[in-house]
This record gives sequence, C-alpha cells and structure tokens, in this order.
Amino acid sequence: MSAPIEFWYSIGSTYSYLTVMRLQDHADRTGATFTWRPFDVPAIMTEQNNSPFLNKPVKSAYMWRDIERRAAMYGLPIALPAPYPLAELRLANQVALLGMQEGWGIPYTRETYRLWFTEGLPAGSEPNLSQSLSRAGQDPARVLAAATSPQIDAALTAQTMRARDIGVFGSPSFVVGNEVFWGDDRLDDATAWARDGHL
Amino acid sequence: MSAPIEFWYSIGSTYSYLTVMRLQDHADRTGATFTWRPFDVPAIMTEQNNSPFLNKPVKSAYMWRDIERRAAMYGLPIALPAPYPLAELRLANQVALLGMQEGWGIPYTRETYRLWFTEGLPAGSEPNLSQSLSRAGQDPARVLAAATSPQIDAALTAQTMRARDIGVFGSPSFVVGNEVFWGDDRLDDATAWARDGHL
Repeated sequence: MSAPIEFWYSIGSTYSYLTVMRLQDHADRTGATFTWRPFDVPAIMTEQNNSPFLNKPVKSAYMWRDIERRAAMYGLPIALPAPYPLAELRLANQVALLGMQEGWGIPYTRETYRLWFTEGLPAGSEPNLSQSLSRAGQDPARVLAAATSPQIDAALTAQTMRARDIGVFGSPSFVVGNEVFWGDDRLDDATAWARDGHL
Repeated sequence: MSAPIEFWYSIGSTYSYLTVMRLQDHADRTGATFTWRPFDVPAIMTEQNNSPFLNKPVKSAYMWRDIERRAAMYGLPIALPAPYPLAELRLANQVALLGMQEGWGIPYTRETYRLWFTEGLPAGSEPNLSQSLSRAGQDPARVLAAATSPQIDAALTAQTMRARDIGVFGSPSFVVGNEVFWGDDRLDDATAWARDGHL
C-alpha cells in the first residue's frame, strides 16, 4: 500500500500541463493515489525571488521545446505557442479550488488545460472558463460568482500558505510525507518514494 | 548507430555531479558517445539574468535534497552539505579545458567532483586541485601554469560563447544536433534523441 501523494499545482504553470494530462493514467498504472491541491504559485515565487522564466528568453524558448518533446513522448496533443503568462491565473485557481470542494475540480482542470494547450484559449479567461466549466457539468455563472467570493479567495490564500509552509515553491510539486518533489519529471521519484520510501 | 552527444558542463554546477559520476556507466550501457565540453556557465547565467539558486534559500535547500535522493538512486556516494558556491569556478574549468586538450580532462573532472562532493574539498581550490591533478597523472605546478595562461583563458571564453550560441544556458546540458537537453534528468531524453530522433 503506497503512501498518499499530494499533487500541488497552479493552473498557469506550463510544465503542469504534462502532469495534469497524464496523472490519471499514471495512477491507474502504478496504483498510486493523488490528492489534487490547486494553489497560487506566483505568490510564493514573488516572495522567494524566484521567477524561472520572466525576462529569460533563452530559457523560456527551451522550456517550450522541452515541453513539446515530452508531450510527444507521453502521447499528449499540444499546439504551441500557447498564450503565456495567463492574465487571470488567480481566478483560474479559485475556480479549481471550488471545484475540488464540490467534486468537479479534476475534469475542470483537465479541460481548461486542454483548451489552453491545444486550442490556444487562455485558462482563467473567456471563452475557456465557460467552456471548461460546461464540459465539467457546471453552470459558469453560478461557479464564477462562488469562485470570486471572499470565502474562496481566502481559502486559496490559505492553501497557498500551506504549500509554502511545507516547502512547495513551484508547480507541479508532489508531496509524500515530508518529502517534496518538484517538476513533472519527478513524478516517478514521488511515486517510488510513496511505495518504497526511497527512489 | 547513435548520433554523437555533446556533454556541456561547468565544474561548480551541483547537479553536474550526478552526470559526471554516472556518464561512463551510462555510455557503456547504452552505446551512446559523449564529448565532454567544459565551459563557464556563470558567464552565461549572468548575461541572461538567470541565477537559479542565488538568494533562493528554499529552492536551494530543495536542490540539495533532490541531489541527495538521486545520488542514492544512482548508487553514488555523497556527503552534504558540499561547499557552495565555488570561489574558483573559472580556474576549475580552465584546468578541465586544458585537460580535454591533453587527454586527462575526464579523470580530473571526476576526481575533483569526488573530492568536492564526498570529502568537502571545493573544486578549483587547494588541496582539491593538486590532489585531483595528481590522481589524473598530472604535475599540478605545470598544469596550473598552463591553465592560467592567456591562451587557455581565451579558449574557455571561446568555448563559453559557443555554448551560448547553440542555446546552452545551464549545466549540465546535452546537445544532439540542434536539440538542447538541460539537466542531469534529461540524459535519457538526449540519449533517446541521439538514437531515434525522438523521445
């Protein structure tokens, strides 16, 4: 029996596309269990002076090529360039957090990423928001009113502070007990740790 | 027959420890061929506003833990904390470049990293320099005089500019044709690309 794995992510993170789209298959194949935890990674990055791509055109170009190659490896569709950065990152994750509370957060996250990375529609903005919510079985007007409430805003801040307190500084991250694994490319490490307590 | 792979590295890079110590086994197992190319990565990072760990204590602590876990996975010895950053990074790589010209660069690189990561002796400084050179069969006094010559200094700068021109921005990196793969964790990707032209 594997230890549970927390999957910390922010819609707006580019590499998280790879994880969001392959995580269910990975879980089915390995038997690992994941709890999805949306948070606001730019708030932590700003506080920690950690902006991996801002004003770094060479590294940014590499990042897109790396994601493109790895998406092909995983058999995931992708149409680059995808709009970046997102103008409405926080709203995208407020919606995700509400969705996790209500039980439709995973299909919303997958669909909003799919529209962003394969149809060029930025997550967190229209028409992506309404389309992804509709496909997750939700009424966009109701969800947007609830997701922008002070309660959900505060809950996202609390979730972000919890991420920071346990050592999460980037998205995607996987947490197993006290161990943090950062990056889509650490999914196998996290899964091994959850199963065996070592890599 | 696989395409050749250029292994670009700077002594001073922490993750490069993993690559330096496992690359020969990896080559033997896969049949991939590597040309080792020392360069001065901080010169590129400064120019590109890319300092992944400077003033980032949380990310830095993660980096060491990630390396420690992965060293164990690869069966590599490691004693942390290792001195960081190196005071004499450029000298360490001038020596490496001379060593590549003269044929003893790989054993020097491996030994200087071993002393740095398992005995706490910073690469590029004494006693690491003389010990690693001696174990690579070289006379330290002769090598240090030659490595600090204007010719080797200029050659390291030229090698660094070539790295930058082909899109290398970090260490370790692997280059196959026009494709750059950054990070010890992309060694398998680079090897697959060299063999198959895709991941």
